[in-house]
Amino acid sequence: MPTFQTVRGMRDLIGEEAQTFTHIISKARETGALYGYKEAITPVVEPLELLNAKSGEEIRQRMFIFKDLGDRQVALRPEFTASIARLATTSLKNKPKPLRLFSVGSVYRYDEPQRGRYREFWQSNFELMGSGRPEADAEVVLLTDSLMKTLGLQGYAFKIGHIGVIRGILSQENVDERTQNAILQRMDKKEYEEALKLAPTPRCRSMLEGLLELKGVDCFETVEKMKSYVAAYETAKAAVENLGEILKLVVGSGCPIQVVEPAFARGLEYYTGMIFEIYIPQLDIALGGGGRYDRLIELFGGEPTPAVGCAHGIDRVALALQTQKATLAGKAGKRVLVLAVNDSLKVEALKIAQMLRSSSVIVEFEIMGRKMAKVLEDADRRKADFVIIVGERELKDGAVVLRNLAKREQTIVQIKELVQRIKS
Amino acid sequence: MPTFQTVRGMRDLIGEEAQTFTHIISKARETGALYGYKEAITPVVEPLELLNAKSGEEIRQRMFIFKDLGDRQVALRPEFTASIARLATTSLKNKPKPLRLFSVGSVYRYDEPQRGRYREFWQSNFELMGSGRPEADAEVVLLTDSLMKTLGLQGYAFKIGHIGVIRGILSQENVDERTQNAILQRMDKKEYEEALKLAPTPRCRSMLEGLLELKGVDCFETVEKMKSYVAAYETAKAAVENLGEILKLVVGSGCPIQVVEPAFARGLEYYTGMIFEIYIPQLDIALGGGGRYDRLIELFGGEPTPAVGCAHGIDRVALALQTQKATLAGKAGKRVLVLAVNDSLKVEALKIAQMLRSSSVIVEFEIMGRKMAKVLEDADRRKADFVIIVGERELKDGAVVLRNLAKREQTIVQIKELVQRIKS
Repeated sequence: MPTFQTVRGMRDLIGEEAQTFTHIISKARETGALYGYKEAITPVVEPLELLNAKSGEEIRQRMFIFKDLGDRQVALRPEFTASIARLATTSLKNKPKPLRLFSVGSVYRYDEPQRGRYREFWQSNFELMGSGRPEADAEVVLLTDSLMKTLGLQGYAFKIGHIGVIRGILSQENVDERTQNAILQRMDKKEYEEALKLAPTPRCRSMLEGLLELKGVDCFETVEKMKSYVAAYETAKAAVENLGEILKLVVGSGCPIQVVEPAFARGLEYYTGMIFEIYIPQLDIALGGGGRYDRLIELFGGEPTPAVGCAHGIDRVALALQTQKATLAGKAGKRVLVLAVNDSLKVEALKIAQMLRSSSVIVEFEIMGRKMAKVLEDADRRKADFVIIVGERELKDGAVVLRNLAKREQTIVQIKELVQRIKS
Repeated sequence: MPTFQTVRGMRDLIGEEAQTFTHIISKARETGALYGYKEAITPVVEPLELLNAKSGEEIRQRMFIFKDLGDRQVALRPEFTASIARLATTSLKNKPKPLRLFSVGSVYRYDEPQRGRYREFWQSNFELMGSGRPEADAEVVLLTDSLMKTLGLQGYAFKIGHIGVIRGILSQENVDERTQNAILQRMDKKEYEEALKLAPTPRCRSMLEGLLELKGVDCFETVEKMKSYVAAYETAKAAVENLGEILKLVVGSGCPIQVVEPAFARGLEYYTGMIFEIYIPQLDIALGGGGRYDRLIELFGGEPTPAVGCAHGIDRVALALQTQKATLAGKAGKRVLVLAVNDSLKVEALKIAQMLRSSSVIVEFEIMGRKMAKVLEDADRRKADFVIIVGERELKDGAVVLRNLAKREQTIVQIKELVQRIKS
């Protein structure tokens, strides 16, 4: 008989690890609600043509693709945006804009597994459709900030830029879109040498080199330097100005440290404006990121609709919280073991268990038929708070034995006072 | 450009529908915690051999099976039990018993879509491993009761039985296991004529017929009748006695109406003891069910371990709540729209939005750059509670305009009193 394992790159989360996940997920839900986003639960399996309509070549090659029994080509979603774009162009097509939608769930990419990177991973994803204004860009950055703050993450920083800066330079230098994409992909992977080699002219190359070296002491100074650096490139200059507007809103309303990266690029080919990522000092992988993609809805057959969005890697945020040894805010209830001293008292013991649970006390009922000494030993090992012993004698007086495990003392307590005694 | 749709049999849940789902899911989590169950988040994609190790032929033919890019045969989980059995025989192998684990998530079966049945559907699943005693069986019934009760479901009833009754009769009549399974499957589908035709002897057939007709006015009377009916069949009689024990615990501790079904069968071939399902009067599909399967862990290469478990269909529970027009307990916060009268006040307006959100007020920030009349009209239509108008004049005095949409009146309110005014 073989020992079974998970599929390569996928993993089980048990107990505390699962709790961290569900904690992050419920904070993402809360944050979504506070910003007026409605939840959308979409299928894990989507038609391949839907996912192909948007994904860049890079993601396409890493999808889990298969045929269902009806011989339809389907795939496991590699992210949420395509599914949300489907909603925006079908069932929500006629809803007034802006559309604010969020999703939380698992996504699938056939990547080489490594720390913080799995083939099944979890995201919270936010999409804001219908506004091209800087306050929309600011909103997705701010909600990311709110989420990280409410999770208690320490010292996180935003890296922010604008895809229009590099694209503006390259377009004005007559670099075709394909080459632009190739350059941006290399830059995203920090393969700057390779990226520069792809620049078709010396001038183009030196412009990119200069951009890579540009830095200011604070984010607004960097923006000012960028503005003069690209002064001769009209659309690049407009991009920098747009970035400045967004930064003014974000920083002005209290979102912490911004690292402006003049030559910032993100892998997905469809970004058209502001892009950002979020990091903590202890990890070199982004915990989340996003940006503007104004051509997205068109790609799915909808009316031209400006859109901006972001996604957070829940596995990575969990890793970040663990790295920072953050304690989850959740207050665990008291844990009690309930035990009947003989089989004829099991019903009475169960009634007490049900009564306690309905008052939010966590109850493990003794289902192993073990002797009392064994149960007490086990309760000690599992760090329960109390053991309740249901015995004939005490029950006659409407009472049970309540054993406090930490204090190693036991008292007879009236059943109607049990909840209060346990909680106090 | 085609209009994209979901994969056949799968669906999107948006807004309120998604809220109902997440409400049920969080109640399942709460219930799991109250009964001392730890959460296990396992992958949606599992090795085919793991899923094959347990699933009956019927489920096997309805799985989404494919090869990953590493040419491994994998499948989308059709339920949770195989994954939990994997945990019990690998990473949790040496944990002391009992093991109490629960999971919530999506599962996949290639069924013909119909009302309440989808190809992607959601379950909460509970497994209790390590005890063969009736209090373990009682526990999974009771936690199902707790979950339905806390969700506010009305008039639900349990159908309960014991697979050992029919199996006991058939075994003693020398019916081979394969034929037994075929008979049970037909009975599960309520194809009683077909089931009876499969009975190899007249005596066997008449025993089953008699069982189908057996009924008492209450569950304990039915059990008594069953006991005398199968008096000559030793293992069947033991099964009825076991069922009686379980019922005593369940009914005694306050769980409502029990319908005992003497010839009850459930599709999955691996049940070995008590089985149950839960229904509401308005729907003829089970909202959930479960039972005992003492050979499960062995199937996965573990030590023989008695086990009992249950699963609840979240899609169906949602349908039941909707059918009963249940209102979710969740108290929605106040919804506010925040608007700056001109662009130079956007940062101040954003600051107010962030302050309100950190006090749990739901804020939609105006990101469309619309004129005030438009925003007010939109806020009315969307049934927001308030609009906050951030204007130059009021801001000088540390105040904003607060417009109560229901009362159609507006007042000037100090920013530091805003939260209190909105919440009162």
